Amino acid sequence: MRKFRLETCFSPAAYPKYADSENIVVIVDVLRATSAICTAFEHGVKRIIPVSSVDEARKKKDEGYMVASERDGKVLDFADFGNSPFNFTKERVYGKEIVYSTTNGTRCIKMSCDSKAVVVGSYLNLSSLSNWLISQKSPVLILCSSWKDRFSLEDAVFAGALAERLLSSDVYESICDSVTASLDLWSIAKPNVYKYIQKAAQRSRLALNGLDDCIEFCHQSEYSSIIPIYKDGCLIPLIPDKER
Amino acid sequence: MRKFRLETCFSPAAYPKYADSENIVVIVDVLRATSAICTAFEHGVKRIIPVSSVDEARKKKDEGYMVASERDGKVLDFADFGNSPFNFTKERVYGKEIVYSTTNGTRCIKMSCDSKAVVVGSYLNLSSLSNWLISQKSPVLILCSSWKDRFSLEDAVFAGALAERLLSSDVYESICDSVTASLDLWSIAKPNVYKYIQKAAQRSRLALNGLDDCIEFCHQSEYSSIIPIYKDGCLIPLIPDKER
Repeated sequence: MRKFRLETCFSPAAYPKYADSENIVVIVDVLRATSAICTAFEHGVKRIIPVSSVDEARKKKDEGYMVASERDGKVLDFADFGNSPFNFTKERVYGKEIVYSTTNGTRCIKMSCDSKAVVVGSYLNLSSLSNWLISQKSPVLILCSSWKDRFSLEDAVFAGALAERLLSSDVYESICDSVTASLDLWSIAKPNVYKYIQKAAQRSRLALNGLDDCIEFCHQSEYSSIIPIYKDGCLIPLIPDKER
Repeated sequence: MRKFRLETCFSPAAYPKYADSENIVVIVDVLRATSAICTAFEHGVKRIIPVSSVDEARKKKDEGYMVASERDGKVLDFADFGNSPFNFTKERVYGKEIVYSTTNGTRCIKMSCDSKAVVVGSYLNLSSLSNWLISQKSPVLILCSSWKDRFSLEDAVFAGALAERLLSSDVYESICDSVTASLDLWSIAKPNVYKYIQKAAQRSRLALNGLDDCIEFCHQSEYSSIIPIYKDGCLIPLIPDKER
């Protein structure tokens, strides 16, 4: 049986060397953008519009959208709430269109939008995402959003968790060193990923602003079966057939 | 006691986010450029001129230099020999000035030349290099040359080996996720680094051209006490005081 290529890119800065129109790109920003987006869809959000800058977020607010936006750990004065997954409650988001301000995540989505498909990954939708990818029979690139183009431990470890599932199928194979490294990091983290991730720099950055309360939540799987997919400037829910 | 920052950059594409004029930058390209350069200095080469392109290498040959240059695993017709460390024998290189053609390595050296110092690292000079860095009391950035801006397993593992030595001193500290990941990869590789590195993509690329005979050699330490340092467009030997 033909096998498909699995690769991982640890920094958006290196993305051009991995770009391929045949790829399904999985955007990963475990702490916190892609975890928050998966939570919002599980709670029934209709569409999410990702934006890079505070100015764009403010403009969308003026147009009447509900906006999640923070900078340096503080909710911006014009925003409805901040970027934690805990803000996306069913009461707030069900049936709504929401703007989510994420510099790194938006950049990753936009740079990869010439691919075959762009989807959002996190531990929260890991099972559903990996099953769907296996059914697609296309090359896959896991794109870690990282922080300021630096390698992010939590995204690399998640890439290993996803790679483990994809490579255990008969559909994927990899000769990519990033995949190999992520599998080894995941093998160390797997027994207690929440404990392992305590040493991640992003945990410390979040803790400085008291925003680290969501880290354990962001590292649970089987929370959602919805795969957010990017279409025409928005993320919309892709609900795999068997889950309907 | 004041501690100094240790960081690792896994891809030259991400270098701008790590650039700092206070840094001592350690260029790493274990398979094979930095291992070959360390071997050449151990065998008494006077100076090495790193060049990026085949055209530059050819021009230097026309100027009378001895030139090491290959592309796609083949020694170029005008070159004296290829890029393997085994080519830099004492008989050939002692007292000579040699041009070494390495696309990734040269790019890394040139992009970091505004730093406090740029030195060449490999397993071959690991002890001497780490002792010297500890004596310098400056921030250190380990810059992995990688292959086409992609993460390279063998360079990341070496970064872990070097980080382990630096962090075991009282001089360095790190909050950099790349350092953390490299230490974990090194912890897995350490019992038998040559065996571990069999899964690296670069090993396969070298093997395709029968150039993988030097891999075990490139993973031995205590081979040389010389630290190649970049000055005025050339690499010259820095011999730590206590070794003289």
